[in-house]
Order: sequence, then structure tokens, then C-alpha cells
Amino acid sequence: MRLSTVRTPKGTRAVRVEHDHAVDLGLPDLGALLALPDWRTRAAAAGPEIPGADLDFAPVVPKPEKIVCVGVNYRAHIAEMGRDVPPHPTLFAKFPPALIGAYDDVVLPAGSDAVDWEAELALVIGETVRHADHAQATRAIAGYTVLNDVTARDWQYRTLQWLQGKTFADTTPVGPHLVVPDDETAAAEPDVRLSCVVDGEEVQSAATSDLVFGPVELVRYISTIMPLSPGDIIATGTPGGVGHARTPKRYLTDGTVLTTRIEGIGECRNVCRAEKTPAAGAA
Amino acid sequence: MRLSTVRTPKGTRAVRVEHDHAVDLGLPDLGALLALPDWRTRAAAAGPEIPGADLDFAPVVPKPEKIVCVGVNYRAHIAEMGRDVPPHPTLFAKFPPALIGAYDDVVLPAGSDAVDWEAELALVIGETVRHADHAQATRAIAGYTVLNDVTARDWQYRTLQWLQGKTFADTTPVGPHLVVPDDETAAAEPDVRLSCVVDGEEVQSAATSDLVFGPVELVRYISTIMPLSPGDIIATGTPGGVGHARTPKRYLTDGTVLTTRIEGIGECRNVCRAEKTPAAGAA
Repeated sequence: MRLSTVRTPKGTRAVRVEHDHAVDLGLPDLGALLALPDWRTRAAAAGPEIPGADLDFAPVVPKPEKIVCVGVNYRAHIAEMGRDVPPHPTLFAKFPPALIGAYDDVVLPAGSDAVDWEAELALVIGETVRHADHAQATRAIAGYTVLNDVTARDWQYRTLQWLQGKTFADTTPVGPHLVVPDDETAAAEPDVRLSCVVDGEEVQSAATSDLVFGPVELVRYISTIMPLSPGDIIATGTPGGVGHARTPKRYLTDGTVLTTRIEGIGECRNVCRAEKTPAAGAA
Repeated sequence: MRLSTVRTPKGTRAVRVEHDHAVDLGLPDLGALLALPDWRTRAAAAGPEIPGADLDFAPVVPKPEKIVCVGVNYRAHIAEMGRDVPPHPTLFAKFPPALIGAYDDVVLPAGSDAVDWEAELALVIGETVRHADHAQATRAIAGYTVLNDVTARDWQYRTLQWLQGKTFADTTPVGPHLVVPDDETAAAEPDVRLSCVVDGEEVQSAATSDLVFGPVELVRYISTIMPLSPGDIIATGTPGGVGHARTPKRYLTDGTVLTTRIEGIGECRNVCRAEKTPAAGAA
């Protein structure tokens, strides 16, 4: 089952996406849907149809309470950096204004000249969990989606804490669909390839089986810290191949087309556009 | 003017606190109040009274979209650590489940044995701003409150990113009041003393004039990254005197009384209680 949040003239709507149309589920977004205890039943219900050609994808969950991101989580990338496999996941945050839809423009911040790509598998929470064991963590995952943790490297490394380089407004595509695992294209823990393509050139390619901390383990771990709630997004980390680690370094520029693809889950395709800064208060 | 969110049998309510009572402002919390363009007028209005003895303080804003915290921001503390004054603020995040009311118990996570205090001046945003200049940033601050950025040091330093030690559920008192600057006890940028008292002993004491990046500068800086919205909380950082930097190190334990005080702004008083972990899924 594929679920999305789409924009309509009357505001955003939660929909189920079928082959050539979507079904309006009667709720403003997937966050509102997932908050219902019977969301799986509601998601499968009949409803008014929206033609496929009219679908304008918002972030799968536009305003999650939490966006938790994971760093240093692909074995091959850790090895090529000469590091040891870490005993604990590295966690950092984004805030909701960072999110954009699967085909929206990525806004390159006026104050940065080092904006980089990070293709990632993301999961979305479907029920509240705290101190989850493996089975509870598995059940708490509503499904999977595609995310690109677009990062302003210069701001990321201004200080020891990465947050400010990670949460620029309108930088992080997420979508187009939440793929719910009863669908034949996804398993409880997807073992799939993800890739990032910049202006037609594949720059990242890896299998999610290379993750040090997989989706279920991440939910278990994070739920020891705080409750996870319906709609929360966890981005599981990116493999090697980012622009900042290349020689010469390579970054996203005005007009770059950024494609983020996960086999069986979906694809985001975003054009990068330089921010139009207001004259007053420019960074 | 002093505003709070209080718990009532019918759910939380936004109130104005007077000498011996509070006035119900007809909204569920201060986040909902601050989202109204005319919130200053609404906050000053008449309404049903709640006796002062019945006030049960929730976090001033229970579910802000963003909680942005600042590290390494007191000059004297930076000097005593032998560091240079940083050119940029260090920013990190908390998520809403971390917040508790001004007199609630601080829950000491079962998985940590190094929970520490960090008394801080916090500000709350009262209007949406992006790329703010100094005047816009000043206007965007609704008021000030007291926060203790209680931190699990062992989890903070498990990885390079502090988030996981900073956002344990039910650790971060914030309140009891949002002090709105037309009140005679607070200026646009308060120049006041803050202190932290652990079981009767003063362990932190500093003047907010020692901040490297003051409230207005923080709003200006953060707004270059993303829009700030009504109800967002910014915690401005803590001075020297934390338990982790002492010899021997000193942490919060079951039964410890933690008092966080800012002259003219208010005081949180919280008893620390060991978390009761469920048998399954313990960390």
C-alpha cells in the first residue's frame, strides 16, 4: 500500500496512491492518518478519487513531532573512512521546515556555498512506543520512504554540532510515498539498493543491508530515550559518495537535478535553486 | 505580564497569572495563544478565574515545533575551559517529550548514571520570522522563561552529536511563567542573574550579560537557517558549575531537589526521581 500527502486547492490531503489515481482518505495529511489507532483500515478504505496527473506531493508527513537522523551508519563507508564500527548510533535532528515534497525545488541557502547530497532510507512511525523490544519496534514502523538529507557542509562544521547545517528550510525532500509493508514491494526491513544521481551521474549507490543499525534497531534504541509517536520520521543515514568527500569537492548548484532513488520504495527528483534572499537581514 | 500553561481537569489551558489567581484565556496552551496575531490583546483580556492554589504548571509551551538549544555561550565559562570565544553559536535540539512543568519530577533515565544540570535563560517566539534583522528579531521574542537543560552526560558523549543525551523524556523543566517584556520585571534583553541550586547548595551563578550570543542575536542567527514560529523555544546556554566538570564529578540522584532560578523571571523546583523501567525493552 502506498500512502501520500498531496496538496489540493483546499489544502493538503492524505491519500492512497493507486496505479492511475489516488483515493482521498478524508484527513489533512498522513500525520493525522497515522494518529488514528485504526489507520491501516482507514488507509485501505474507499473514497473520492483524484486523477494521478493532478497529484502534487507534499512531504509524506509535513509536520512530524520529531525528525531523527542517523550518521555514520553504512559499513562500507565507515571502512573507507578508516573508522571502527560504532557501538551506538549517532543521532541528530532536523526541524519540520526543512522538509519539502518529492518533486519540489531544493532551496540552496544564500549563506552557504557547500550544499551536499545524502540519499537515505527513511521510516515513519505508526504507533506510540517507549522502551520497545524488537517485536514492538517492528510493529511501530508504519512504512518506508525516500529522503535526501541535504546538508550545508560549511554550516554543519561551523561548530561541533551538525544541526545548523542540517535543518535549513526547504532542503530535505521526503516522499513521494509512504510504502506500507503489507505491499509486495517492501518487507518489514527492506533489503534494497538506494542511489543518488546528480545531473544524470550516479554518485551514491549502496544496499540497505550494509546499515550498521537497521530500522528496527534504531526504533528500539531511540525509544529508550523518548517515546516515538505516529508520524515521526527516522532517516537511517547515508552511504559513501557524498560531494564533500570527493577530490575535488563537489556541491549542488543552481539548476542541478538531484534524484534520490530506492528500489521498490520510490524516487524523489528535485531541482536545486539558489535562495532569493531578502535585502534586509541577509546572512 | 506573566503567562502560563496550566493543567486542569478538562485539559491544559493558557492563563495569565495574577497575584493570587490566574485568568483563563480560553485557549488550550500558550502555543495556541502565541499563534494568534493579536495574542498580546488576548493575553490581557478578562476571563474566568482559577485560584492560585489550584495552579498546576505544564511546560510553558507543551509542544513547540522547535526547541533550539545553545552550547558554549557564557564568556567566563569559555575562559575557564581555556577556549576561545566562538565566532558562531553552537546549536543543538531537543524534542517536545523532554519538557516538563516547573514543579514536575525530573525523570532520571534508567540507562544513565550521569545526569547533570544546566540552568538556562530561555526565550519564546511570538511571531514568525525569517532572515530577521535586529529589530525584527527583537520584536519576535514574546518573552522569557526559566529552563534547565538536564543532560545525560554518558549518552551526550556516546557519539559526537549531543542530541541523545539532551532529549530524554521528562527531563527538562521549563516555566513556570512566560514573562512578557512589557512587565516591569523584564527588559527586551534581560540583564539578570541566573542560578542553579542542588539540594540547597548553589552550584551555578552567572549574569546573562555574560552571554556571547544574546537572545536577539540568537533569533537573528537561527532565522537565517529556518523560519522561527510562535511557541518555538530557544534555550540560551548554561554557565560554568555543571556537575560533570567538578572534581569529583557530581550528578543528580533519586530524591535530589533541583532549583533553577532567574532573577525577575521565575524559578523551577523539581525533585529528581529514578525512572521505573518496564521489564521488557529496558535499555
